[in-house]
Amino acid sequence: MSPPGSATSAPARFEADALEDFAVAVLSDAGADPAQARIFAHALLWSDRIGRPTHGVWRLPAYLKRFVEGLIKCPCEPRFDIGGPSIGALDGDGGFGHVVGHLGMQKAIELAADSGVGLIAARGSNHFGTGGYFVDLAARRGMLGIATSNSIAKLAPFGGVAPVFGTNPLAIGAPRGNGEPIILDMATAAVSGASVIRAAENGETLPEGILVDRQGQPMTDPGRAGEGAMLPFGGAKGAGLVFFVELLSAVISGAALSSGVRSMFNDFSGNGGNGHCFIAIDLARLLPLESYYARLEELVGQMKAASPGDGEVRLPGESRWRILAESTARGVRLEAKMIAELQRLAERHGVVLPVALSD
Amino acid sequence: MSPPGSATSAPARFEADALEDFAVAVLSDAGADPAQARIFAHALLWSDRIGRPTHGVWRLPAYLKRFVEGLIKCPCEPRFDIGGPSIGALDGDGGFGHVVGHLGMQKAIELAADSGVGLIAARGSNHFGTGGYFVDLAARRGMLGIATSNSIAKLAPFGGVAPVFGTNPLAIGAPRGNGEPIILDMATAAVSGASVIRAAENGETLPEGILVDRQGQPMTDPGRAGEGAMLPFGGAKGAGLVFFVELLSAVISGAALSSGVRSMFNDFSGNGGNGHCFIAIDLARLLPLESYYARLEELVGQMKAASPGDGEVRLPGESRWRILAESTARGVRLEAKMIAELQRLAERHGVVLPVALSD
Repeated sequence: MSPPGSATSAPARFEADALEDFAVAVLSDAGADPAQARIFAHALLWSDRIGRPTHGVWRLPAYLKRFVEGLIKCPCEPRFDIGGPSIGALDGDGGFGHVVGHLGMQKAIELAADSGVGLIAARGSNHFGTGGYFVDLAARRGMLGIATSNSIAKLAPFGGVAPVFGTNPLAIGAPRGNGEPIILDMATAAVSGASVIRAAENGETLPEGILVDRQGQPMTDPGRAGEGAMLPFGGAKGAGLVFFVELLSAVISGAALSSGVRSMFNDFSGNGGNGHCFIAIDLARLLPLESYYARLEELVGQMKAASPGDGEVRLPGESRWRILAESTARGVRLEAKMIAELQRLAERHGVVLPVALSD
Repeated sequence: MSPPGSATSAPARFEADALEDFAVAVLSDAGADPAQARIFAHALLWSDRIGRPTHGVWRLPAYLKRFVEGLIKCPCEPRFDIGGPSIGALDGDGGFGHVVGHLGMQKAIELAADSGVGLIAARGSNHFGTGGYFVDLAARRGMLGIATSNSIAKLAPFGGVAPVFGTNPLAIGAPRGNGEPIILDMATAAVSGASVIRAAENGETLPEGILVDRQGQPMTDPGRAGEGAMLPFGGAKGAGLVFFVELLSAVISGAALSSGVRSMFNDFSGNGGNGHCFIAIDLARLLPLESYYARLEELVGQMKAASPGDGEVRLPGESRWRILAESTARGVRLEAKMIAELQRLAERHGVVLPVALSD
């Protein structure tokens, strides 16, 4: 049990495993299937463990609310429709996006193990958390992994002035010989939706290139975001990628398109409707994994050698694994407000909140 | 025959088919295999036809020179090493990149037709022209296509100060019901190498974010590009994509890595050593193509509806097909200097330069 007062007065660190068990216990008390709740909770806590708390346990209350209101099914009964040795569609049956995604990537890995490449296009899902989690699964099987998802419409298409695309995440991960996969996990928006909200709350001004108004003019007042649209990263090139993430995630999967996707926080009229795409590529079919690892390190060596005198070039997502080691040793840090919210969940569901670690 | 004087005095338009025949004739006279020269010339002229002349017939003299010097083999004898129903490696035997790429994408399409997805990783190749050409092949078979290549080192990794990556192109193409595929075909550099050279020639200053010096400071003088490195597009996100294009094109294919790739214009010590990756995804394995086309048009409709009052949202590469129609009707336009150079090739190889069209 957490020490008296600690839940509301100060931030504290908690064992990630204990928080994962806690999430499973709360969901199970609310009626969720414990096995699927475990998959969900493991993917959820992964984000906290690797230092991306925006997709972590912070979201548990919102996911729980959607489950309780019947907008996320758990258990869901996903159905695969395998169209060939390396491809298939997945109807997620309205389950947790993390569960649908986990099953989808596992099937893609299975197909790749049999045929060399596996692709699963998923519909009938919900917000899947962070794409990095799924490509990490592939990378730890010696495979290159790609994961995409669509999400609620916030971004204008290139040259447009109204929201059509989500911040449509794209993740790519590759195994590395030292056991620390190289993972690029990015929103295809110029900045995250959360950072626009934060800037509005803090009364800050945004640089140009993040928001556009209905006349196509740059907007720098984050408080006016609702009057226009957010922009993709990287100009026309980034906008092209946003389009193809939507195509892979939703057009070919049969998921909700564009404005058909529902917000997990604000729209309680149905399930999210999100779609995803998962690709696994079995590298050992192309070259011995040892050769692959050696070649990769040759490239990494060239990248590190291009470092400036006063710094070091970092690989995509390299900081993730240092943070994971720290989280494993010292637990993950939660804000006081978050701890108080988890304490309320604990009381409501008759579950004991894990003991805070001494810091 | 071109009218007297026209070859050196003014720009003119030529039938693309006739220029393609001309390129085949010149290469064949120089000893190239006519069938592979035809594949090369068709891919080369495609760029002129769709309005991307920087990868078109303008480069014929440079490719010819490399062939004559034994740095590009034609015929090459590419060897596939198929590792599974959906994956294989390709050793291009030092052939034209366009030929290696064409064979590679055709094989990826074949694998996809059999298993749902096909991936070919190619090594032992040369500069392959424009990735759009290859994904167009897939799209016209009802497949989603992806093509990547590495190229000579010009770009710094994120946070770095020296060249490690090429302007590493990434192309993605999807079929559309009207027969005009949607194709994103981009360098992953902030701008093309050619535009830096042009800016230097014109004494222009570049905006920040394109070049970096060895201390990690922005450079705006294009004349100093050689002292530092070019930058990826889109900050850390674009830099992550540059890395994965190199991984897909070179690390997993066994091609030359990073600084191992040779410039097609400046390095005559061996073949280019470029590597590529080609992926084809057979959409009909996921949903009926008619449903796919209908869903795509629904998305396109939402994109067009987001147009500003005074303009129209355009799909990735949409202008390509308008230009192709114009090129087909009126020919492709060549500058006077280019015409003069082709005239010299014509004379050297005893081939007749096509007649310029009346404009």
